[in-house]
Amino acid sequence: MDERLEKQLGFCLEIDKEKSIFRQTHLSGHGRNENDAEHSWHMAVMAYLLREYSNEPIDISRVMLMCLIHDIVEIDAGDTYAFDENGKKTQKAREDAAKVRLFSMLPDDQKTELIALFDEFTAYETPESKFAHAMDNLQPLILNNSNGGNDWKEHGVSANQVYGRQGKTRLGSEKLFEVTDRIIKENIEKGSLF
Amino acid sequence: MDERLEKQLGFCLEIDKEKSIFRQTHLSGHGRNENDAEHSWHMAVMAYLLREYSNEPIDISRVMLMCLIHDIVEIDAGDTYAFDENGKKTQKAREDAAKVRLFSMLPDDQKTELIALFDEFTAYETPESKFAHAMDNLQPLILNNSNGGNDWKEHGVSANQVYGRQGKTRLGSEKLFEVTDRIIKENIEKGSLF
Repeated sequence: MDERLEKQLGFCLEIDKEKSIFRQTHLSGHGRNENDAEHSWHMAVMAYLLREYSNEPIDISRVMLMCLIHDIVEIDAGDTYAFDENGKKTQKAREDAAKVRLFSMLPDDQKTELIALFDEFTAYETPESKFAHAMDNLQPLILNNSNGGNDWKEHGVSANQVYGRQGKTRLGSEKLFEVTDRIIKENIEKGSLF
Repeated sequence: MDERLEKQLGFCLEIDKEKSIFRQTHLSGHGRNENDAEHSWHMAVMAYLLREYSNEPIDISRVMLMCLIHDIVEIDAGDTYAFDENGKKTQKAREDAAKVRLFSMLPDDQKTELIALFDEFTAYETPESKFAHAMDNLQPLILNNSNGGNDWKEHGVSANQVYGRQGKTRLGSEKLFEVTDRIIKENIEKGSLF
């Protein structure tokens, strides 16, 4: 087998580990914690189906790929909960080291491409990044909402904190932020959020 | 919320159930059984990274979307193991009923689109479908190989059966079939397959 293909298949096997990185979100039906691979799959499908609600024209293939690869760094860096303020202080350094080790398993051209795509995602500047982030917010929101907001209750998260993160959904989609806003308000009314 | 968006979000929540459909393949490192959402995520990433090995030019976004949605029907129809000859007799009828119920949750245009894409996948005729199937074969193969071929041993699967399915990888990619063939031969030599 040539070296290029060997590197590609080595990376493909390595990312299997993403299925063992668990998040704070629980599956619907009061299920177990979700893992990063499942979350990424769900985000990519949602991005495709909801693409008409992007504020700006987007290259949906790039968005989907961004969704699919955005959490690969967590194989090394671990998941940082959206409301873990201490964890977020070291998140960038951990993820930068992870992206170099992991994407360097690929041939150089693909390493460069995936690092650039990951960096674009984290920079939150392009329309594609903003819409991918909207999915990164909306996907756990609909699961958590289906479970009566239990993920927030478990961590004692406040409405202000939730708006701090979920409010950015409007950068990608005003329309989907309307849904977000309604879900948050309903959970405040129900006492799941305070 | 308008009816269109409500239907889309209802479908997005429904497909969360794909994370609870487990396959016969085990995660690398002698891990637990893999579920359909993880498998689909893995296939889509692999399709993107290995697209240069397709025998024919392909629209990689279509392939990725096909990978992401090809197992949604299993939410209702369940997973049919590649070597379950009895299960395969009823697979099409079960999956046809499932595709109608599940994709009908979407607005009509998206229902029509996803059913067509699923049908294209199962028909095994277009270059995109052939390459997506190559991923559907290669992804569990590299996991199973990393675990010493245990999935085959557990089910007493024969080399002939494995070639019957994995041989079709060459329809999508002669190059990736070379890898497949080498992995199968190595497992025969090691006694994981007979």
